[in-house]
Amino acid sequence: MTDQRRLAARTALIDPFRVMEIAEEAWALAASGRSIIWLLAGEPDFGTPPEAVAAAREASAGGRVQYTQSLGIPALREAISTYYGKRFGLDVPARRIAVTTGASGALSLALAATIDPGAQVLLTDPGYPCNRHFVHLYGGEPVCVPVGPDNAYQLDTALVKAHWSDRTRMLLLATPSNPTGTIVVPDELAAMADVVAARHGVLIVDEIYGELVYGRAPTTVLSHTDDAFVVNSFSKTFGMTGWRLGWLVVPAWAGDAIERLAQNLYIAAPAPSQAAGLACFQPSVWAQVDAHRRELEARRDVLVKGLRSLGFAVPVVPDGAFYVYADCSPIADDAVAFVRRLLHEGGVACTPGLDFGTNRANAHIRFSYTASSAQLSEALARIAAVIG
Amino acid sequence: MTDQRRLAARTALIDPFRVMEIAEEAWALAASGRSIIWLLAGEPDFGTPPEAVAAAREASAGGRVQYTQSLGIPALREAISTYYGKRFGLDVPARRIAVTTGASGALSLALAATIDPGAQVLLTDPGYPCNRHFVHLYGGEPVCVPVGPDNAYQLDTALVKAHWSDRTRMLLLATPSNPTGTIVVPDELAAMADVVAARHGVLIVDEIYGELVYGRAPTTVLSHTDDAFVVNSFSKTFGMTGWRLGWLVVPAWAGDAIERLAQNLYIAAPAPSQAAGLACFQPSVWAQVDAHRRELEARRDVLVKGLRSLGFAVPVVPDGAFYVYADCSPIADDAVAFVRRLLHEGGVACTPGLDFGTNRANAHIRFSYTASSAQLSEALARIAAVIG
Repeated sequence: MTDQRRLAARTALIDPFRVMEIAEEAWALAASGRSIIWLLAGEPDFGTPPEAVAAAREASAGGRVQYTQSLGIPALREAISTYYGKRFGLDVPARRIAVTTGASGALSLALAATIDPGAQVLLTDPGYPCNRHFVHLYGGEPVCVPVGPDNAYQLDTALVKAHWSDRTRMLLLATPSNPTGTIVVPDELAAMADVVAARHGVLIVDEIYGELVYGRAPTTVLSHTDDAFVVNSFSKTFGMTGWRLGWLVVPAWAGDAIERLAQNLYIAAPAPSQAAGLACFQPSVWAQVDAHRRELEARRDVLVKGLRSLGFAVPVVPDGAFYVYADCSPIADDAVAFVRRLLHEGGVACTPGLDFGTNRANAHIRFSYTASSAQLSEALARIAAVIG
Repeated sequence: MTDQRRLAARTALIDPFRVMEIAEEAWALAASGRSIIWLLAGEPDFGTPPEAVAAAREASAGGRVQYTQSLGIPALREAISTYYGKRFGLDVPARRIAVTTGASGALSLALAATIDPGAQVLLTDPGYPCNRHFVHLYGGEPVCVPVGPDNAYQLDTALVKAHWSDRTRMLLLATPSNPTGTIVVPDELAAMADVVAARHGVLIVDEIYGELVYGRAPTTVLSHTDDAFVVNSFSKTFGMTGWRLGWLVVPAWAGDAIERLAQNLYIAAPAPSQAAGLACFQPSVWAQVDAHRRELEARRDVLVKGLRSLGFAVPVVPDGAFYVYADCSPIADDAVAFVRRLLHEGGVACTPGLDFGTNRANAHIRFSYTASSAQLSEALARIAAVIG
């Protein structure tokens, strides 16, 4: 059925998400009446703040829902600029902020603006799979550097220098990381930014989980340099995945190109979502974020402790996001098969490591703590029963 | 400021929209109290149907606004499938329909799936500028074939055959067209589809204005062949530009690749917008579309007659959409300068032809009839005064 002759070569490089198969099996089991505990999603279970829902409703009430400016409504760009001022004491002017259709839109814009065919991009393995696929989309070559617990599953200056070639154009980092939840500490991030700058390369930092860190203050690479693209999103911080709203902080040298690309690639981000996002920058919403952060920290502690007691290896306690990337090799040889057993025998849905790379990927499982502590305890009991 | 060394080569090929400069001047004039008649937008002035607004509100009421399936919520894909059945008597199964983030998302998906670097794509000049920019995005080479009034500003089999080279992979048509509003008649469209199929090429037909045709029944290329990508949108038919919702009908041979690309490129279209779109497929909404179509036809007649009487050449009466692409060369040498005069002296905002290509582009102006017939008459009077 597939006509390879008419498909672009890049399509062979884009993998499906394995988690979708697991999710479909889980939906089928749930539909048949089985109790499923969902630990596989990349989205919070808290939902969108009522203030944001009300703002979207108000913005669309008269039916006049039209294209906005390509880089976003001015008030929202100003609000994001003010966020950087209040949160980090930084001057990030609104003109450097592009409102995008989710973080996906931000990544797509930044890579379209900078990646020529054949350019290499340094990434972590494990890492968010869409990152390497976006690189393929524009003809670039992802160089997925294996990282492990010794380095908190992140790159460092030595690794960046060691893997930087004549063709390397970009370093793409995520802090905290999906799937590991680990961060790059600010000093190391600054040092890597300097290594990239010295090579006249491009730095992209994915900070979409930047507000969801535990036991430490949020940080941004922008405190060290203006010469970076920063990808951010309303999805994780504000429980707004379905609204598809993110932003990109753009270095001055790319501002004009980013605006032209935005005009042509997506015209504008969804207008009701932009109205919703604008309503997030008020104290009552931040109070909800603070409560969610405390709740997520407690869940993390339940899950890490419980998984370790069951024999999983969790060598680095995740600093943020809502993921535990657990090494299941002490218990099971094949993570995909084990994920299936956990689902079918235990009613616990989680994500196989193979979605995040090839570096010992099938020895790992990602557990999302997007369920209550009580559900997490129940999930741990079910996993214990499956292990036997 | 711009750092060409770090920008991808494609960024030099992506032009800004000139209309944005005109729009900014028009906003400034309006803000200073000038009366402006807006004939430049690519979006209807009717607004979103109340049914759709209510459905979005309901879908987001509890704050649970999460990612949907990458190809769209099943009910919406089914509703679009049913639309093809009821409207055209066609069997287009839901599995062949991908819900996208606007028609922009649909175009991006279809080209990402099929265009390798160096592949040539046949397009019309004049035409929708984003089309050629999407081709550049993926390293393809747009071949913009000059078309004029002799051919209703559309391609035909002779032109397709004449311009098809060893590197040509795709024909991209829009019917009705932006900026000309002219259609490809079904027999000619079928013949061109056959020419492309005989060359094992890819056909994309942009049908986003397909419901907005006057004095004739809507048609689709799918009545002739399943071997085409069809781009469609809720934006123009239902006044939903700001919601960013479209769809792509996918030929069977590309279904798997499109799903993988959608998962990675945008995860899912906005969930509230999908709920809004689902509410559009009901009789009360179609009654509104029918009324809008009648209103647009009347406006077209006012505008075409008026422009002709002022000395503009409108050699082909547009069949649909809400644009008149008028040749101003009998009146003015430089369309950009003339557009500026119409704005500053007459308070009439319209779009210079240079946004749509290079083929006698600066002899043309696009007028959008997105204002009432009364406003159109006033605009014509103002233009008459400017011409003197």
